[in-house]
Amino acid sequence: MTVFEATCTAPVNIAVVKYWGKRDTSLILPTNSSLSVTLSQDQLHSKTTIRASADFTSDRLWLNGIEESIEKNKRLVACLRETRALRRTQIEDKDPSAPKISNLAIHICSENNFPTAAGLASSASGYACLVYTLSKLFELPLDASDLSIVARQGSGSACRSLFGGFVAWEMGTKEDGSDSKAVQIAPETHWPDLQAMICVVSDEKKGTSSTEGMQLTVKTSALLQHRIKEVVPKRMEDMIAAIHNKDFPKFAELTMQDSNQFHAVCLDTYPPIFYMNDISRAIIRIITEYNKDGVKAAYTFDAGPNAVIYAPKDNMAEIYAILSHYFPNAAFDDSMGLLKETALPSLPKSFDTRISPVFPEGSVKQILHTKADGGPRVLDSATHGLLNSEGLPKRLA
Amino acid sequence: MTVFEATCTAPVNIAVVKYWGKRDTSLILPTNSSLSVTLSQDQLHSKTTIRASADFTSDRLWLNGIEESIEKNKRLVACLRETRALRRTQIEDKDPSAPKISNLAIHICSENNFPTAAGLASSASGYACLVYTLSKLFELPLDASDLSIVARQGSGSACRSLFGGFVAWEMGTKEDGSDSKAVQIAPETHWPDLQAMICVVSDEKKGTSSTEGMQLTVKTSALLQHRIKEVVPKRMEDMIAAIHNKDFPKFAELTMQDSNQFHAVCLDTYPPIFYMNDISRAIIRIITEYNKDGVKAAYTFDAGPNAVIYAPKDNMAEIYAILSHYFPNAAFDDSMGLLKETALPSLPKSFDTRISPVFPEGSVKQILHTKADGGPRVLDSATHGLLNSEGLPKRLA
Repeated sequence: MTVFEATCTAPVNIAVVKYWGKRDTSLILPTNSSLSVTLSQDQLHSKTTIRASADFTSDRLWLNGIEESIEKNKRLVACLRETRALRRTQIEDKDPSAPKISNLAIHICSENNFPTAAGLASSASGYACLVYTLSKLFELPLDASDLSIVARQGSGSACRSLFGGFVAWEMGTKEDGSDSKAVQIAPETHWPDLQAMICVVSDEKKGTSSTEGMQLTVKTSALLQHRIKEVVPKRMEDMIAAIHNKDFPKFAELTMQDSNQFHAVCLDTYPPIFYMNDISRAIIRIITEYNKDGVKAAYTFDAGPNAVIYAPKDNMAEIYAILSHYFPNAAFDDSMGLLKETALPSLPKSFDTRISPVFPEGSVKQILHTKADGGPRVLDSATHGLLNSEGLPKRLA
Repeated sequence: MTVFEATCTAPVNIAVVKYWGKRDTSLILPTNSSLSVTLSQDQLHSKTTIRASADFTSDRLWLNGIEESIEKNKRLVACLRETRALRRTQIEDKDPSAPKISNLAIHICSENNFPTAAGLASSASGYACLVYTLSKLFELPLDASDLSIVARQGSGSACRSLFGGFVAWEMGTKEDGSDSKAVQIAPETHWPDLQAMICVVSDEKKGTSSTEGMQLTVKTSALLQHRIKEVVPKRMEDMIAAIHNKDFPKFAELTMQDSNQFHAVCLDTYPPIFYMNDISRAIIRIITEYNKDGVKAAYTFDAGPNAVIYAPKDNMAEIYAILSHYFPNAAFDDSMGLLKETALPSLPKSFDTRISPVFPEGSVKQILHTKADGGPRVLDSATHGLLNSEGLPKRLA
C-alpha cells in the first residue's frame, strides 16, 4: 500500500484583539498577542484533500481548481518541510515498520466554500486546513497547540483556526518561535449564545495586503509601539475575563475598541493605510446608534471594508432588520434559519434612522449569519475527497 | 465724543501640528502645543466692526447678518470681560483723562468672506478678529502674543490667527493659562514660496463638533496620551527646524504624519470619530502617488473632510491639473491667477491614474488657491465698517 490520503475542513476566525505587526517575518512571530472567535464551518470553511503516493513524481497544489506553484510560496514550503520532518522524527525514525510517507510526493487540493474575492480571511482557514490535513495524513502525535506553531508559519492568524470557540495566539518570547502558539480560552460550547453577522462590503479599491501593510506600520507608526506595550497586554486579560464571564457588553466594548485601534494604527502609518470605507463607517454609526441605551452588538473590521458584527442570538433579527434598512436588497444567507423562526422585526423605537443615509443597492453585497463554533474536522476521503483516482482535482476552475 | 469704533480683518490658519484635546476646558488650555500656517486674507478672512456708544443700551452681536445672543455664549462673554478689564487696568485706571470706553455697551458685527457651511475654520478667524478689533477699539497696549491669550479663550486655534506666517501655540504649564499663547516662528516673508490649495469636499454627514470630539478623545483614547507625551514635543522641534530651513520635503512629511495621527486618535476614540470620507482618502492617495519620486506636496485635514494641500508655488499648476482630473468641474477660485500665468499642464508622466476612480461632479465642490500670508489688519471704519449710522448692520441676512 503506497497511497495515503486525508481530507479535512477548517474554519475561519475573526479576531477581537487584532494581530498587526511581526517581530520576525520569516518565522511569523507577532509583536503582540491576539484573540479570536472561530466561526461555524456551516457557512465558511476551507476544505483540503492531500494524497501521498509513490506514483506521484512531484509535489503539486491546486487552489480553488487552479494549479499553483509550490516552490514560489516559501510559507507553504515551510509547512511541508516542518510536517515531513515531524513525520520522520516522531514516527518513522522511532518505528521502522511505519510507512515512509515523508519521502512520497504529495498532491494538495484545496477549496473554499466562499468566494476569495469577498475579502474574507481565507488564508487563515486555508493554512489551518493544510497543516491539519497534513497532520492527519502523517498521523502526527501532536495536539492543536503544537500544530498551531506550524500553521503560524503559513499565515499568522491561521494558528487560531486550529481550535474552535475562543482562541488566543500567545505571542511568546523565544527567538525560535516555539512558544508562539494558539491556546483555547474556552470551547464553542461555553457561550453558545454568541452569534455573528458578516457584511460583505463593496469596494472599488484593492487595499494594501496585510503582510505588506503591517510591516509598514511597524516601521513608521509611533502609536503602534504604545499599543503593543501598554494597551494589548491589559486588553487580552480583560477580554479573556469577559469571555469566561460571558459578559457581552464588556466583550463588545473591547472588541470595538480594538478594531478602532487597529484601524487607527493603520492610519498612523506613513503613507497611511485605509481598510474601512464610507460604508464601513456607516455600519459603525449604525451599531453605535443601536448601542446607545446599552451595548447589544459589536462591530469589528479586519484588513478590508467588510464588517463582522458579534451579538447574542436574540438580537440578530433586529440587527438584520436595521442592516436591511440601510442596505436594501443585500443578498442574505439565511442558512441558520433566522427569518424562518421570526418575522423581520421593526426597528427599535428609540433608533434614530437619520444617523446615516440609506445606501444604494449593492453597497453591501451579501449578509451572512453565523455563530461561534468548533475547530477543524476530519472527513471521509472516499465520500468527500477532492482528488480523483489519478490524484487530480475532481473539479477544475 | 461718546462713539468709538474699529474695523479689522483676521486670517484663517491651518495647523500642520494639530491641536486636539484640552487640559482645561474653560480656560481652553491644550494638552499639546501646535503649529500652523496663516493663510492669505485675500481668499479667506473674517471681518469685524465693533462700536462702543453711550447711545447703546446693551451689548449686541450680528454674525453673518444674523443677530445672535451674547449671554448664551460663555466664550464670547469671556473675551469681552477680559478685554474690558484690560482697558480698565491698563488705561482708564492709569490715566483719568482716558475715555471710559469699558463702561459703554458695544455692537459687534462680523462676517466671513467664505461660506461657514464649507467647514473651513471660521471660529479661528472669527475669534481672532473679535479680540483684535476689541484691542483696537480699547487701544490696548498689548502685543499679539498677549492678545492671543484672550483669543485662546474664545476658540483655542484662534490664538494662532493673531500672527501671520508660521505660528506656534505654546501649550504652557501654568494653571491660569498665562503662558499658553501664540508666538511667531517665522513671518510670511520668510518662505514666500509656500502656497496652499483647499479642496472643499462634499459630505452628507455632519461630523462631531471639535469641542465635543476632542474631549471624548481625551477621555477614551489610550493612544492620545502617547501622542501628547512622546510624539508632539519632538515633532514641534522638527517642524520649527523644517520651517527655519525652508525644507519643504521635511515640512511636508511632518505635516502629513501629523494629520494622519490626529485622525488616528479620533478613530481610537470610543465611539470612534470620523472626519475624513472616501473623497478625503482619495485625495491622500492622489498626493501619495504624486510624491512617489520625491515629496512635492503635503495634505492635511482638520475636523472635517476638506483637504488643505501645501506645496511650493511651482508645483501648484500640476497639483491643480491632477485634482481636476479626479474631481472634474470643481469650481476653481483663481484669484491668484494660476491659470493666467500658465496653461493647465498635463499630468506627470510617471503618475499612475489608476490609484483612484474619477469622482462624480460635485464630490469636490470648490478648489481655492491661496498662500501663507500676514496677520490681522486694521481697516478704515468710515469706508469699510459693517455698521450704519444707527449702529446696526449695513447688511442683514
